Amino acid sequence: MSAHPTSDKQRVATLPIRQASAEDAVVIAGLLHEFNGEFDVASPGVPALTSRLESLLAERSTICYLSRCALGVALVTRRPNVWSEGPVDLLDELYVVPQYRGLGIGGALITRLVADARDAGVSVIEINVDEADVDAQRFYERHGFTGRHGPSSERAFYFSQEL
Amino acid sequence: MSAHPTSDKQRVATLPIRQASAEDAVVIAGLLHEFNGEFDVASPGVPALTSRLESLLAERSTICYLSRCALGVALVTRRPNVWSEGPVDLLDELYVVPQYRGLGIGGALITRLVADARDAGVSVIEINVDEADVDAQRFYERHGFTGRHGPSSERAFYFSQEL
Repeated sequence: MSAHPTSDKQRVATLPIRQASAEDAVVIAGLLHEFNGEFDVASPGVPALTSRLESLLAERSTICYLSRCALGVALVTRRPNVWSEGPVDLLDELYVVPQYRGLGIGGALITRLVADARDAGVSVIEINVDEADVDAQRFYERHGFTGRHGPSSERAFYFSQEL
Repeated sequence: MSAHPTSDKQRVATLPIRQASAEDAVVIAGLLHEFNGEFDVASPGVPALTSRLESLLAERSTICYLSRCALGVALVTRRPNVWSEGPVDLLDELYVVPQYRGLGIGGALITRLVADARDAGVSVIEINVDEADVDAQRFYERHGFTGRHGPSSERAFYFSQEL
């Protein structure tokens, strides 16, 4: 609609990000469900996700951010850690609705959650990124993350076991 | 001392594993400090680790296992998760004192923590393993873990940012 896509981009990028509350559970559930659909991963469905989010968002260990109009969501879980004074945050999900990508919403979500984590005394923020998803790896590197760890600058693989 | 190293190996492998309590904090701190020393990673030191472990082990989100005589330790943190009914466990550290490796202590620790996690309704157990540490990757694969995820059987890299 606009003759100035760059200005649009700048406008969207500065949209405010807010921390979600339990009342946002159904909106977040819808976004996470869409997310799984896009990547062909089974989803427990919006009603189940809503009910879980209602409980999780009432606790301090799950923190969620929404961009205005819920065009993007970031979901973080916080846990204690023996190696540092402060806790560790894991960015479980970062999702932007497909047609609004490239407008800076993901970056605004990351910037906000990193700033809040720093204020809360968090020591480390972690993310697991698919090996083939080089764009996401670059995105996280631009936002201060690294996939190289320790004295030998090694990569680490994420291993898991479903019970 | 024994003429039958295989029997020794079997004996050690069946040594009981117990869940640690806050009273074990100093012993666990010593093991974790040794661990970091072995891999040239800075450690906050035994007194600081002891004090953190005393608080962490008093909470339900940090779970620690010790083999008899503290020859090995496994440290797990538990957090909620939106994708599954049950929580997610992360195996933060698994360490066996060098001279007692190859005796099955690590395997006994893993077997016990997986069994307890299943009983506690945990949905997923996670571990981050260095890319070059192929032995550790094989060890975890033997114990039911996989580094390949989702419909495309992809690997995922662990990214982090220190604050």
